Amino acid sequence: MIIDCHGHYTTAPKALEDWRNRQIAGIKDPAAKPKPAELKISDDELRESIESNQLKLMKQRGSDLTIFSPRASFMAHHIGDFGVSSTWAAICNELCFRVSQLLPDHFIPAAMLPQSPGVDPKTCIPELVKCVEQYGNVGINLNPDPSGGHWKEPPLSDRHWYPIYEKMVEYDIPAMIHVSTSCNACFHTTGAHYLNADTTAFMQCLTADLFKDFPTLRFIIPHGGGAVPYHWGRFRGLAQELKKPLLKDHLLNNIFFDTCVYHQPGIDLLTKVIPVDNILFASEMIGAVRGIDPETGNYYDDTRRYIEAAAIKPEQRKQIYEGNARRVFPRLDAALKARGR
Amino acid sequence: MIIDCHGHYTTAPKALEDWRNRQIAGIKDPAAKPKPAELKISDDELRESIESNQLKLMKQRGSDLTIFSPRASFMAHHIGDFGVSSTWAAICNELCFRVSQLLPDHFIPAAMLPQSPGVDPKTCIPELVKCVEQYGNVGINLNPDPSGGHWKEPPLSDRHWYPIYEKMVEYDIPAMIHVSTSCNACFHTTGAHYLNADTTAFMQCLTADLFKDFPTLRFIIPHGGGAVPYHWGRFRGLAQELKKPLLKDHLLNNIFFDTCVYHQPGIDLLTKVIPVDNILFASEMIGAVRGIDPETGNYYDDTRRYIEAAAIKPEQRKQIYEGNARRVFPRLDAALKARGR
Repeated sequence: MIIDCHGHYTTAPKALEDWRNRQIAGIKDPAAKPKPAELKISDDELRESIESNQLKLMKQRGSDLTIFSPRASFMAHHIGDFGVSSTWAAICNELCFRVSQLLPDHFIPAAMLPQSPGVDPKTCIPELVKCVEQYGNVGINLNPDPSGGHWKEPPLSDRHWYPIYEKMVEYDIPAMIHVSTSCNACFHTTGAHYLNADTTAFMQCLTADLFKDFPTLRFIIPHGGGAVPYHWGRFRGLAQELKKPLLKDHLLNNIFFDTCVYHQPGIDLLTKVIPVDNILFASEMIGAVRGIDPETGNYYDDTRRYIEAAAIKPEQRKQIYEGNARRVFPRLDAALKARGR
Repeated sequence: MIIDCHGHYTTAPKALEDWRNRQIAGIKDPAAKPKPAELKISDDELRESIESNQLKLMKQRGSDLTIFSPRASFMAHHIGDFGVSSTWAAICNELCFRVSQLLPDHFIPAAMLPQSPGVDPKTCIPELVKCVEQYGNVGINLNPDPSGGHWKEPPLSDRHWYPIYEKMVEYDIPAMIHVSTSCNACFHTTGAHYLNADTTAFMQCLTADLFKDFPTLRFIIPHGGGAVPYHWGRFRGLAQELKKPLLKDHLLNNIFFDTCVYHQPGIDLLTKVIPVDNILFASEMIGAVRGIDPETGNYYDDTRRYIEAAAIKPEQRKQIYEGNARRVFPRLDAALKARGR
């Protein structure tokens, strides 16, 4: 089985965006604020939006199951206050849940959180509990910078975030560390902010001892780990300067990288440098880079091709495709086993 | 000849740091403010600080000449106002100039600028002019984020920066795009902020048409280009989505990467993905990562070893070591030729 651990609902029916725009307008003009019930998307519309997009490509490319979360760039936690984020997260998570109910063989949900800049992360717990207990979510997306490119929250190693981590440990779910849209003109969202956040999150963990407090806490750093594998020598050397243990002992029981790296040399480096147990297959398909690479004739985000061509053994490929995802997402493994998969 | 295009004076005598600390204290307590003349460092002290450090390692490792600029993390443009930065830059640039006079066969200077957050970059021009015309500087370091991790200036493509670019074009000197110390707790200086800035700078150029306005402007993006070469497919794809030309036409006449990547697989990727004409040898030695890699027994920052081992042709290696630096830094080439080198 091939599990894609990084899929977002980037193709939701336009009604969702329209509702969101009305919600945003309602921040300044309360009379314009829509009710959640005013958003109406039928099961047929949901199914159509997936079957003609993600599911079609999954079948073409040969992946079986996607861990599916709300569109990352639309989380936009910097917009409005906790109430705005809370209503928006509930709507987006419900849609991903419905997709997982309509197409249970192919999608299982991961939750966005109703984060808001400067607001205590423990306010996210009720949504998290609902998503795990009622919606069967197997993971969450945690935004280390809800300010959207201004980086005003404490580092991920700070006790600020511990309420989330305590709940993650209790449920045995991992978090993908994923920022949202940048509202800082310096940072292009998918070309700079996403990759910077990946590198930043890794280094926040490297300088701290977070995983001593939470030995079973697990983070997935997306987009192939930002700059980290390319600079693995730098990070090993920095850990050494800081008198930290070897990275494999200090971080690699808890940190995993996905394969959203959109060319063969990048995947070759990733699979060469990072232990195979720490790599999870992913494509983030129909995401930041949707085109066809003129150098190969294939979609940039058809990452399975790169994994197939990487110089790794068949059993390592199986780890990347399936085994690691089952280990890092135990609730996914349990859900699959309950269905005999 | 082997030219290291990225060296900082990280080993300056302690008197420099002491003077700077007094300068910083003087921001709040003007009575404590030291005069520049109170900093006394003899030629012997300068020579000793270099001969026992950078020059010793250059000889051991076989590099001949270093383009030498003030310590990047000490630029700290976020501290104080323009006056503070101006005095500090003048002192630091003078020291690098003196090093280049004392050891002219091995060091040639590049200048830091007296940038200050929110201050018009044109205020940097007098220091730049002095450094080029009187001190023989062959390039500058330009900080795209003088706020130190808060990213409050406009992107590098903004007209805000044009006064610097106009002078660079007039003198035909390149800029290394190099941030300084992060004062944002989210970003570790050398493990996150430096690499993030590299990626950010590249993407700022990708989304814009800066090099249409300045066809001869040249930037060196240090630290192997941050995350860029590892994600080269992503950046090619983003350029395609944005209807920009191919990266080789859009950016690679103007943007160059150094080789400060501290392990073999990283350099292998860099030399595979980025055209050899766009790679300049560098080590940033005695910098962020000073230790010995237990996996190889060699210094992490002994980047020559990685270039020697890379699967490139001898003439390509020569380009990386020498030819590209002479082309990107024409004033370096002229200075060398004037000395018959």
